[in-house]
Amino acid sequence: MPRVQVGMWVKNEGEIEMVVMSKRFLVEENWQVQGLRMGQEMEAHYMLGLALLQRQEYAEGIKALEKALDLGRGANPASYMVEEIWQELAKAKYSEWEHLSHARIERLDVLREACVKALGSQRMHGVSRVIGLSNEAEGDPEQLKHLSEVFRKAAEADIPSEVPDHLCCKITLDIFRDPVITPSGITYERAVLLGHLQKVGKFDPVTREPLNQHQLVPNLAIKEAVRAYLDEHGWAYKLN
Amino acid sequence: MPRVQVGMWVKNEGEIEMVVMSKRFLVEENWQVQGLRMGQEMEAHYMLGLALLQRQEYAEGIKALEKALDLGRGANPASYMVEEIWQELAKAKYSEWEHLSHARIERLDVLREACVKALGSQRMHGVSRVIGLSNEAEGDPEQLKHLSEVFRKAAEADIPSEVPDHLCCKITLDIFRDPVITPSGITYERAVLLGHLQKVGKFDPVTREPLNQHQLVPNLAIKEAVRAYLDEHGWAYKLN
Repeated sequence: MPRVQVGMWVKNEGEIEMVVMSKRFLVEENWQVQGLRMGQEMEAHYMLGLALLQRQEYAEGIKALEKALDLGRGANPASYMVEEIWQELAKAKYSEWEHLSHARIERLDVLREACVKALGSQRMHGVSRVIGLSNEAEGDPEQLKHLSEVFRKAAEADIPSEVPDHLCCKITLDIFRDPVITPSGITYERAVLLGHLQKVGKFDPVTREPLNQHQLVPNLAIKEAVRAYLDEHGWAYKLN
Repeated sequence: MPRVQVGMWVKNEGEIEMVVMSKRFLVEENWQVQGLRMGQEMEAHYMLGLALLQRQEYAEGIKALEKALDLGRGANPASYMVEEIWQELAKAKYSEWEHLSHARIERLDVLREACVKALGSQRMHGVSRVIGLSNEAEGDPEQLKHLSEVFRKAAEADIPSEVPDHLCCKITLDIFRDPVITPSGITYERAVLLGHLQKVGKFDPVTREPLNQHQLVPNLAIKEAVRAYLDEHGWAYKLN
């Protein structure tokens, strides 16, 4: 059985190639039962994810990073590794969105221009031609304004804007990754709230009610709402 | 000071007129401090809301019903009155959406047809005219398909579909009104979960973990997510 050094970060292409092959073997061999600790399992999925992304196998790479993130959160939700994996995952998702949205917006622009031109030339044929009138046909301004609105609406999800407040942590103001709710009904980013409880004090940051780690509950519905939002608005993966 | 019988449901127009005037007087006089119980305050806002809706003052009527709902939930979230007020509020919101969306969709249809016609006639001018060719100009099928997609996307929020699962109670399958989260991280409709705890047993309906009423926490972020969703998708106010 091949042994792989998973605690080391190898980032050049040749090394990654090798790691991928070895990792695939490990995964196929169901290496979880072979005594690797959860931390190593996480690292293996993380390395596999990075390598697949390097090879531009986005869908598979993202899947591996998501698996690494789940494992990392299970072990220590506030760890440095979880943050690092999230950053890589967010970068990959953002690139994927950038690529797809660019094509969508270009396609919309072509169609919008065709509509503007067609409406304009039809209008010109509709009115009697006057010598000296500009050759540039223009549509009815009201109609063109409405057309712009329609195309803006069709492209809306692809235009970066503000993430709704209820999907953002009250402390970080960033979109949630792993939201937890406190007995006061307020939802926070888990790692950030754990940091607050440890370093600042055992109280709810907004209401200042006494608060202990064991009172935190994962807000599963909001986690799902964030997932749905990110699926539609890939730009929101952009890291500050 | 005028006294009004607020415990009686008066629904014909003349009576409502009178109730509205009296209620307005009460509200202006800051009647909360005059010793009316919270139940009566709720009823007053409820009657005021119904009357304003009858007079087609939608915005104000909806505001009064929302106030009544807040007061009613404060007193007894699982009461018959809270359900009744919600039903009236949902009806009003649905009518408001129906009215506005009808106008929006009609306007979109006019523009879409104008685009289809203009693209078609431009295409006809672009190709050499053949005698015997249909007079009906038709655009490029690919282009027309994309145009349909664009207009469908622009109208999307106005087309009734499925409310996302994370905004619906696991028991009722209806969109949340007053969501509460349990220690298992699952969110339920408050009145329905209270009914379950009282009539079925003191356990979480999904996980079957022991559960007491005092462990319920309002899921404020999901409440806000529902509000935002309903603002965009008024059809979701439709009652089953």
